[in-house]
Amino acid sequence: MSVKPVLINGEWKPSLGTKTFHAVNPATKEQLPEEFPVSPWSEIEEAVQASAKAAEVVRNWPGSRFADFLRKYADLIEDKSDALVKAAHAETALPVSPRLKDGELPRTTGQLRQAADAAESESWREATIDTANGIRSMFGPLGPVVVFGPNNFPFAFNGISGGDFAAAVAAGNPVIGKGHSSHPETSRLFAEAAQQAAEATAMPPGFVQMIYRTSHEDGAKMVSHPLMGGCGYTGGRHAGLVIKEAADKAGKPVYLELSSINPVCILPGALKERGDDIAGEFTTSCLMGTGQFCTNPGLVLMLSGEATDQFLETTVGKFEAAPVGTLLGGGTQKGLTEGIIALQSAGADLLTGGEAGDGDGFCVKNTLLKVSARDFLMNPGKLQTEAFGNASLFVIADSADELKQVIRTLEGNLTGCIYSQSAGDDDSLYDQVAPLLRQKVGRLLNDKMPTGVAVSPAMNHGGPFPATGHPVFTSVGIPASIKRFSMLQCFDNVRPHRLPPVLQDKNSIDDCWRLIDGEWTTGSVGE
Amino acid sequence: MSVKPVLINGEWKPSLGTKTFHAVNPATKEQLPEEFPVSPWSEIEEAVQASAKAAEVVRNWPGSRFADFLRKYADLIEDKSDALVKAAHAETALPVSPRLKDGELPRTTGQLRQAADAAESESWREATIDTANGIRSMFGPLGPVVVFGPNNFPFAFNGISGGDFAAAVAAGNPVIGKGHSSHPETSRLFAEAAQQAAEATAMPPGFVQMIYRTSHEDGAKMVSHPLMGGCGYTGGRHAGLVIKEAADKAGKPVYLELSSINPVCILPGALKERGDDIAGEFTTSCLMGTGQFCTNPGLVLMLSGEATDQFLETTVGKFEAAPVGTLLGGGTQKGLTEGIIALQSAGADLLTGGEAGDGDGFCVKNTLLKVSARDFLMNPGKLQTEAFGNASLFVIADSADELKQVIRTLEGNLTGCIYSQSAGDDDSLYDQVAPLLRQKVGRLLNDKMPTGVAVSPAMNHGGPFPATGHPVFTSVGIPASIKRFSMLQCFDNVRPHRLPPVLQDKNSIDDCWRLIDGEWTTGSVGE
Repeated sequence: MSVKPVLINGEWKPSLGTKTFHAVNPATKEQLPEEFPVSPWSEIEEAVQASAKAAEVVRNWPGSRFADFLRKYADLIEDKSDALVKAAHAETALPVSPRLKDGELPRTTGQLRQAADAAESESWREATIDTANGIRSMFGPLGPVVVFGPNNFPFAFNGISGGDFAAAVAAGNPVIGKGHSSHPETSRLFAEAAQQAAEATAMPPGFVQMIYRTSHEDGAKMVSHPLMGGCGYTGGRHAGLVIKEAADKAGKPVYLELSSINPVCILPGALKERGDDIAGEFTTSCLMGTGQFCTNPGLVLMLSGEATDQFLETTVGKFEAAPVGTLLGGGTQKGLTEGIIALQSAGADLLTGGEAGDGDGFCVKNTLLKVSARDFLMNPGKLQTEAFGNASLFVIADSADELKQVIRTLEGNLTGCIYSQSAGDDDSLYDQVAPLLRQKVGRLLNDKMPTGVAVSPAMNHGGPFPATGHPVFTSVGIPASIKRFSMLQCFDNVRPHRLPPVLQDKNSIDDCWRLIDGEWTTGSVGE
Repeated sequence: MSVKPVLINGEWKPSLGTKTFHAVNPATKEQLPEEFPVSPWSEIEEAVQASAKAAEVVRNWPGSRFADFLRKYADLIEDKSDALVKAAHAETALPVSPRLKDGELPRTTGQLRQAADAAESESWREATIDTANGIRSMFGPLGPVVVFGPNNFPFAFNGISGGDFAAAVAAGNPVIGKGHSSHPETSRLFAEAAQQAAEATAMPPGFVQMIYRTSHEDGAKMVSHPLMGGCGYTGGRHAGLVIKEAADKAGKPVYLELSSINPVCILPGALKERGDDIAGEFTTSCLMGTGQFCTNPGLVLMLSGEATDQFLETTVGKFEAAPVGTLLGGGTQKGLTEGIIALQSAGADLLTGGEAGDGDGFCVKNTLLKVSARDFLMNPGKLQTEAFGNASLFVIADSADELKQVIRTLEGNLTGCIYSQSAGDDDSLYDQVAPLLRQKVGRLLNDKMPTGVAVSPAMNHGGPFPATGHPVFTSVGIPASIKRFSMLQCFDNVRPHRLPPVLQDKNSIDDCWRLIDGEWTTGSVGE
């Protein structure tokens, strides 16, 4: 079988690279037949140039043009959903149902359509009009964007179909999708649909492009290329920091989603009231998708006591009774095992699991560890090592002060949860804990595990470093996620007919919210 | 005279440092009597700790508390305006009138009061409520902020009184002001008023703090301190990049305003129509404040021809006839002279000026340089060296294509202007030039020089790197500038009585705009 082509400047063409790779079926550990290229720099340079050319063509287009593309793309994805689900299942071992077919795929097309609606309404631009001073501003396109997708969401976060892709296109930018090397065939199928959609909606060549793999060095070179506008990256911390350093140095916006261990704090009253229920919720949340969620609850904070001992025992039982899922690949298994070892060597005790086995293909037994808050506080950095997968660490504090001290040492996370007693028995402790946790996380939850991430305008799938690269932004939630791939554009004394339509006196778009002289309105100037 | 104290944790105390410095009167080149300390790391650590403690105290306070402080501070500044103007005039040589007394001081108190209004209304938080999903979000405080002020605006951009200070406080953050070493007495007077205002409005100790100088190394250490939330920096590129690298590495938000040469493009029709007027406008804009504005027009792009030769001749005449202003200091004079030499060594010809003299104290003759677009394109990096002060470089293109090519090579700038003929004669060229310039600048102007920066919600005093560190944000314009010193905080399933007031069903603040289920409203949920 020949090496799969790359999508550059509107054409599927043979890669200029000589190195190739195959994906592996994680459930069987067998290499999959399709062969994919590693793109050399010359090819990336070609993609960047084409992307910059496309950016010049589309930059003044109305949002409806990008909406047309996004909707057509969503339709075409649905047309080939069987092939996509089959490829993704083979490449990731994620279940066909209820995950890939009826969960992640509809979420992905839903995101693309929400992004289309936002692009069309242009409210995301936050058009701001100051009639007295003759100054008007809006968010405009940033320029070509490269999106690096992670391994754990082959659809919803894919570099060529996921949330960052949708947001970057909605903002009016061409995108170079960098597929994750663990699911290249899935990415290729998306790119086919994307290119068909681009042709059907008359987007310029180079508006969507696809490469499968590069060296870290070339990835860093790409994000700092003078013609690039910015980048989105979801994935491991190490590679992410290489990308971040290069982009930062070049002054290019870089939106990262890196590791997060998502602390869950279970207060004593809640434990007493509904400990068994919480153990069940926690087990489901932690083992769902074999724990391979960015919002997986990887750290549980509790106060010591009999009820806590009982909770741990119950939870260990549930972890041992639950089926062991397949991990996304050999690298994930290795990373998880190393993470568990790192936690142990930093002082955590293994309660259950900890080694490979009990499932199909790449897998690690459902794992729980425990450490005292006192020990945690002696080595808080290492005891926050992310063990990405079906594992979690309990931290048991002897006092509220110790619990608070643990929270003070936490790094930035996407989420933080607090379970408290429903009638208010925990309220005084809640009031001490919540403000500390609030500053450490992007999303604070009550009485609910963090793994569900609704695509809502009020969602924050973001948080302080190292969970992400910037605490103002969210990667999930439209329209907020779109703003990331934009720049603020002010027009000062610009002649009225030269203004972008969204900044002209008359509001020509239904439902477009604009801030006119301090008031949000869907009306026109002077109305 | 004893060394002036620093303001740490609510107290004016002697610095722990042994090194000291004096400011210099730029008009006389004489050292001013007051002696100021260079703060060592131990002192900065103390300030950071106090700031973090203050942040814990105030983080759930309503915006009205910060508004009270800001308004009181503005009042106290007005009470001591004579002393402030006197000190700033001695330290910067900027004219008392119309600049310091009736321009910059009212602007500064105006900014503080606008920030107070914004803090009180809380609209800047962009409270977003999704009732169906039970998810609510808003921008909340970031944590302690350090603000590094520049030399050229001793009031309006001062680390302890300027736009970044006002924005960081409005967002609910304690601020450590780092005064610029060229005007420490001005900064000290502000800090006295700030501390009095803090006491009068019952802010915690450490809410406002003041240091005068640190080593670059300690500055970098401060912005990457785990307890710091973020920083604002306005100043030279070299020191700014040191700060940026340290903050980026620690994942701390850093908002920079660095160099900008603010290209002005004068199209042939405009030149023919009103060349002399434009020469006058340009001269005024470029020489105002001895050219020491971040938005000073430092690069003028024109097409070659007789009218252009005439324009240059007229402008040279005006530059030679205009009085030569005093520069902010010896460093500014050295930087300007070196910038002019760098431009010449890269191929620019000197039309007038270029050397020290013709004014009081530190000064350089009003300077104009010229280079052909062809030569510019051979060395575009070096020919964009900022010559900060009363100097500008003309780039003369032989064709529209050459002009466009010059714009394509430009770095990011705060502003870009296009002058065109009023009846439309230049429109076809405008349409080619404007989209290219648009992507390079934060604010695009028509028929107007860039030096006026209105404090408007529609203003963008920002732009692509290296003009600033991030193209989404503006440092002037309320409420947009406030958001920089915040983090997005989402509340998922959080019990209603635990939500911040601005996220509760009932809108309890007059004029607070919130996005409820997709509609902007000042009403309550369900209304």
